[in-house]
Amino acid sequence: MSQAVKIGVAGLGTVGLGVLELLRKNGALVGARAGRPFLVSAVSARERRRDRGLDLAGVRWFEDATALAADPEVDVVLELIGGSDGIARQVVETALRAGKPVITANKALIAHHGTALARLAEERGVALSYEAAVAGGIPIIKTLREGLAGNRVDRIQGILNGTCNYILTTMRETGREFAEVLADAQKLGYAEADPAFDVDGIDAAHKLAILTALAFGCEVDFAGVHVEGIRRISAMDIQYAEELGYRIKLLGIAQYRAKGVEQRVHPCMVPKGTPLAHVEGVYNAVLAVGDFVGSIMAEGRGAGAGPTASAVVADLVDIVRGAPRPVFTLPTASLAKLPSRGMQEHVGAYYVRLMVVDRPGVIADVTAALRDSDISVESFLQRGRAPGEAVPVILSTHETRESDMQTALARISRLEATLEEPRVIRIETL
Amino acid sequence: MSQAVKIGVAGLGTVGLGVLELLRKNGALVGARAGRPFLVSAVSARERRRDRGLDLAGVRWFEDATALAADPEVDVVLELIGGSDGIARQVVETALRAGKPVITANKALIAHHGTALARLAEERGVALSYEAAVAGGIPIIKTLREGLAGNRVDRIQGILNGTCNYILTTMRETGREFAEVLADAQKLGYAEADPAFDVDGIDAAHKLAILTALAFGCEVDFAGVHVEGIRRISAMDIQYAEELGYRIKLLGIAQYRAKGVEQRVHPCMVPKGTPLAHVEGVYNAVLAVGDFVGSIMAEGRGAGAGPTASAVVADLVDIVRGAPRPVFTLPTASLAKLPSRGMQEHVGAYYVRLMVVDRPGVIADVTAALRDSDISVESFLQRGRAPGEAVPVILSTHETRESDMQTALARISRLEATLEEPRVIRIETL
Repeated sequence: MSQAVKIGVAGLGTVGLGVLELLRKNGALVGARAGRPFLVSAVSARERRRDRGLDLAGVRWFEDATALAADPEVDVVLELIGGSDGIARQVVETALRAGKPVITANKALIAHHGTALARLAEERGVALSYEAAVAGGIPIIKTLREGLAGNRVDRIQGILNGTCNYILTTMRETGREFAEVLADAQKLGYAEADPAFDVDGIDAAHKLAILTALAFGCEVDFAGVHVEGIRRISAMDIQYAEELGYRIKLLGIAQYRAKGVEQRVHPCMVPKGTPLAHVEGVYNAVLAVGDFVGSIMAEGRGAGAGPTASAVVADLVDIVRGAPRPVFTLPTASLAKLPSRGMQEHVGAYYVRLMVVDRPGVIADVTAALRDSDISVESFLQRGRAPGEAVPVILSTHETRESDMQTALARISRLEATLEEPRVIRIETL
Repeated sequence: MSQAVKIGVAGLGTVGLGVLELLRKNGALVGARAGRPFLVSAVSARERRRDRGLDLAGVRWFEDATALAADPEVDVVLELIGGSDGIARQVVETALRAGKPVITANKALIAHHGTALARLAEERGVALSYEAAVAGGIPIIKTLREGLAGNRVDRIQGILNGTCNYILTTMRETGREFAEVLADAQKLGYAEADPAFDVDGIDAAHKLAILTALAFGCEVDFAGVHVEGIRRISAMDIQYAEELGYRIKLLGIAQYRAKGVEQRVHPCMVPKGTPLAHVEGVYNAVLAVGDFVGSIMAEGRGAGAGPTASAVVADLVDIVRGAPRPVFTLPTASLAKLPSRGMQEHVGAYYVRLMVVDRPGVIADVTAALRDSDISVESFLQRGRAPGEAVPVILSTHETRESDMQTALARISRLEATLEEPRVIRIETL
């Protein structure tokens, strides 16, 4: 067998430790699959003295991760630090400039600087791999870049954040409210102490921007993603979704259109019969539609040491095995610059919940507002009667333009009988 | 851009025509992704004069597919003829001997001769690719060979035959019997005039044998697959499955065990909450369990011109892009020869339906037979009473050894009150 591939691991958090554990346990098998053995030759992390339960004898320690990336005794650099800028970006740029292949699990970095980094990797003729950045152990990057190479893909949609999916699943199963379930998720380690990146949809948006570039062969455009999180989802809406035959999921959706690309992350109602409706708990799933393959879906654990390490090591074997593929399926000079379509132009079905005072004329006012915005109501539900008190009014619409919906909702919000901001959840039937 | 890759297409059936159509429609994009343009330079099929709606001007026609495979003007050979031996095998062997990469959609060929052909490809240093042979457009070969390269996979299970899944889905939806639904499927083109390969499980067994070799790094052992088809599934069993919270699916299952590998294809009851239960109609799906990645599942169309062409062209781009990977993840000399575990040693839960004469003592006789074989009953259902007439008795068991189940069933079959051969469906909870 040929000479060992010397790996430099920058970052010893969950992912870094997972990779070391995988190589310790399955190293011989992975080496046989790659055709060359692997050797972890250098590591870098913030606190050297922390006990990580690791035997790092014979492994060189770098205080400075950038120095690790530049070290001539490191063949491949694993950037497992995280963050869109700062040290993580320096490590990746340093390694690529030195002509070393880089593997990263860093979605923020690729979402913000993917195109520029791809250009750099291309100039140096080395791989920039990021399977672990999206949907954990699911080989969705490989599937889009290689498995669907024969197709024009015009839509991708997925459950891209396990924390949100866990919270929404638990809310449905227990009937509890968001804040309570989030607090429990934090105790269980399924949500971070600062949950904003997850529950506000930013993490999912990072991943969506990456998938969009891959699927459509365009530059990464994180700024073009419309993002809404799950904080405003209430137990009541989850219950109505169930009654109407839907599940509420935080989806990332990218749709190729004649006039540009629509990228959006927001809570959706999906019919119970569709594959994404059945993806529960911390699982992630991505569905892609290609012109020859039709619909395909992949599902698996979206985070955690094991799945993420699995993705990193798959990239490692690919790098040893073959010539690097273009980072986003095409040479960077051929990547399209697709204009992003504003959310105002979105057309789709909507679920709306109003809380109104139960008194004569309210429904007439609401339906007049909808009619005047050309919105066609598909179903209308007012349950129970409590004259003079707050009652929920639930309606769903046929295909409606987002701007029309916003106009109608603004008018409904101003009605005297309206007691809270209307809740709106878009319905996605694919 | 570099010189065109000259493709020789042997076989112009559904798959061959699908590939030509894909290259006609998406050829420029696929060439950009591969970094080289593709040119269909030669084709071969049985009847030259048949109108296929194709413009084959400038494409050389070969009466003899083997001559096409040997032709020096062909760079890559696509074997899309089918059949485990005869001309298809000659074409593949001729091409590999001539040092040409081969892409095939032929599951029977790989299931029967995979190891020997892999050895030949390896000797000549060329690729033998067969993504289209299993689960149509789902990139499951790529997923197992590359995406899960970091894992020890110890189980795979899948819905590998779209015809069977369509029939079982339709039986459930309509309440009709197998023969009737099969006849309709034949009219609609979802089943062949001779349906044996599909409905008797052989096609699924071919695919399972290939997946097993890939997942466990062992030689292909089609003869080691236990195979049962779906002809004996009745509308009544489908209805009971529904009541008990299951769906009936024809699964291919491979389980790695200390003493060897268990490979089996047979109808299964799967709990409605599991991902495979929701895969309906002509869709296929494969679930794999790896030690780091956990459970992952991929779902998509398992057959048809478009999905199959998508898989063939993905292989084509891979061949142009990179160094060939070992056909079954490891060099052939390193492939394990795993003994196949006989079905008698299988341990699992069972669903059993008896048709018995409703008279005193029958249940006592049945339960005595089960007890004497050490079988622990999980649920027992006798619905309705019709003294002196045939009534169904439904039972499910806890973990039971197949040989014990067979002993008990033989004894139950011999009871005077037993009116038909007991129906048995294994329960799979993963």
